[in-house]
Amino acid sequence: MKKGIAEVPGILCGVGFGGIKKTEKELDRPDVLLVVTERPAEFAAVFTTNDVQAAPIKVSKEIKGKISGIVANSGNANACTGERGIADAVEMSKLASQLTGKGKFLVASTGVIGEPLPMDRVRKGIAEAVSNLGKAKGEEPARAIMTTDTFPKVAFREGSGFVIGGIAKGAGMIDPAMATMLAFVATDVSVDRELLNEALKESVDVSFNAITVDGDMSTNDCVFLLSTGRSGKLEEEQFEEFKSLLTEVMKDLAYQIVSDGEGATKVLRIKVTRARTGEQARAVARKVALSPLVKTALFGCDPNWGRIVAAAGAAGTGIEEEKLELYMGDFLLFKGGRADFSEEEVHRYMTENREIEVELRLNLGTASFEYLTCDLTYDYVKINAEYRT
Amino acid sequence: MKKGIAEVPGILCGVGFGGIKKTEKELDRPDVLLVVTERPAEFAAVFTTNDVQAAPIKVSKEIKGKISGIVANSGNANACTGERGIADAVEMSKLASQLTGKGKFLVASTGVIGEPLPMDRVRKGIAEAVSNLGKAKGEEPARAIMTTDTFPKVAFREGSGFVIGGIAKGAGMIDPAMATMLAFVATDVSVDRELLNEALKESVDVSFNAITVDGDMSTNDCVFLLSTGRSGKLEEEQFEEFKSLLTEVMKDLAYQIVSDGEGATKVLRIKVTRARTGEQARAVARKVALSPLVKTALFGCDPNWGRIVAAAGAAGTGIEEEKLELYMGDFLLFKGGRADFSEEEVHRYMTENREIEVELRLNLGTASFEYLTCDLTYDYVKINAEYRT
Repeated sequence: MKKGIAEVPGILCGVGFGGIKKTEKELDRPDVLLVVTERPAEFAAVFTTNDVQAAPIKVSKEIKGKISGIVANSGNANACTGERGIADAVEMSKLASQLTGKGKFLVASTGVIGEPLPMDRVRKGIAEAVSNLGKAKGEEPARAIMTTDTFPKVAFREGSGFVIGGIAKGAGMIDPAMATMLAFVATDVSVDRELLNEALKESVDVSFNAITVDGDMSTNDCVFLLSTGRSGKLEEEQFEEFKSLLTEVMKDLAYQIVSDGEGATKVLRIKVTRARTGEQARAVARKVALSPLVKTALFGCDPNWGRIVAAAGAAGTGIEEEKLELYMGDFLLFKGGRADFSEEEVHRYMTENREIEVELRLNLGTASFEYLTCDLTYDYVKINAEYRT
Repeated sequence: MKKGIAEVPGILCGVGFGGIKKTEKELDRPDVLLVVTERPAEFAAVFTTNDVQAAPIKVSKEIKGKISGIVANSGNANACTGERGIADAVEMSKLASQLTGKGKFLVASTGVIGEPLPMDRVRKGIAEAVSNLGKAKGEEPARAIMTTDTFPKVAFREGSGFVIGGIAKGAGMIDPAMATMLAFVATDVSVDRELLNEALKESVDVSFNAITVDGDMSTNDCVFLLSTGRSGKLEEEQFEEFKSLLTEVMKDLAYQIVSDGEGATKVLRIKVTRARTGEQARAVARKVALSPLVKTALFGCDPNWGRIVAAAGAAGTGIEEEKLELYMGDFLLFKGGRADFSEEEVHRYMTENREIEVELRLNLGTASFEYLTCDLTYDYVKINAEYRT
């Protein structure tokens, strides 16, 4: 069994089925998740920066102090639902508190935008999740928050005297600064709120904020990090280890999201190195990751370095063509001009690997940044042109 | 016959076939274009802002004073071709001057990136174009610069005592701030360089810089505006009329580019109105126009207002959900929350029209901006995943 958030000491998970989305194909998995902390827990959170924020985002942002857990549903995003949406999100949070006899609950939703939550079904799902509390293990909590995901996403790491475990969902509408993406991560070590926030911010920056599926940003994205304190207090000298393991968990989950990108058949790892600044490296990597022409060429296993170079230049950061080197895998494709390589060999590399690595050496400095994206395929169009029909 | 740049008094066009791209399917149209002015002409130009600029862009940027025309080829972009590329672009320009016995020539190329120009073929094409000078009329000049375009793009307007005619190409890699897009426009009235530049900049800003097919920006984009002076000098009081007609020509060409977007079946006209500032209106419209989720929903004729609202919010300009109104055609879809409309009726509107109009009323001020995009289809993926195979 793969470990996730339920394997963090001090955390109990329960899932329920409310039938929130009434389509046959989704009847085989739960649609409500309850993550409960044995005792009130410290937490940190990051939210979508979209001007349009879903009701659960607005409600969760207002929650201060320690919390007793998270209540989440899939099948309906409770976004663009006005005052009724706010009332429904508040009710979800309160119901979780009442039925568990605990404190405050963060709330999260994912699914279709603009339809009111069917609250009778949500209530049924929450009640079922409460009655099953502690029974959902491994990938089961992640299954309850899936939408167009094709597999549940979990990650787990062990440190010296503590663990970090998490789950995530997300397949489309994935873009940095948060997208239709939820991630719930917990640790059993007690960490000060300030440090927890710092660690969360830093790890999100190089994981969830360094991936894109389609450049769209959702109204519902959030990452919650809980600290149950079950294994005692984090020593000061352990903070770097904690951040490093947290980053590993976040990157692991982020990678799973990209590789499950809607219709994706390949993952593209874009390393921009020897940049003047980290901002330049990030901007160039992001522009390449967002390019539909790069993403369709990846799907076609076409070593089309021209599109990568053009996209890198389009970032407008002052890269210099003469200094630029471009590698795909071990092959040098471009060095101030087309390098001497065999198209066939590179095509074979692209065909035979599911993960393709591109390195763009700007040769302007020493900074670097890494971005992940997936290919743009017929199935992406199919999934999104037929989403609601 | 549709009129274009060749119908502007003082302009002569010739086309030639060099066989620059050696694929069967393109053997039926010319691949070299010569636009010649009877006498040295004033001109204005805007170029791609990509860090990586094709050789013809670098060469054309250095051309000052009056010009005698434009020499252009399709089938090869002469981009990322190093010093040899520069030498080839210079040679194209000089060859046009020598063979016509005229002054300086602007140069432009479009096609595949990263392959050196087959200069023997280019020379043959230029010689043929010179020998045919004056014979290419109507859509013929536009055909010589087509790549993945499915139809030639021309526009023509008559003012009081002058005309403006132009041609353009572009289908993929289309994004504001110039993309794989060429546009050559001429007028027979004599306009001061400064005013010519002002008119060009203003008209490009609301036409070519207000369309997107795929968010990619090319290494080769440029718009050239020539003033032959054949019909005398533009009176000061005519400048507004001139700008207005020029903008019409530019918008006409830009519209044709979007409607010929790679794989496109529909055009989406996005009007953002009642915005706080013009910048806000543009940023929101652009973000909606770039959203793959909006573009796939358009393809599927799915009135998915949630994706439009989410994309508008993602621009991060401070729109307010409660104040937002969203119309599609005459249907009100959203007003602070889902409006009461019939999905079926809106679906029918989307199915039955090739141009779909969306208006986003921000209700924050009085500024507005309009953006054009097309849908994202299976054929876009097909065209770009198989481009070189």
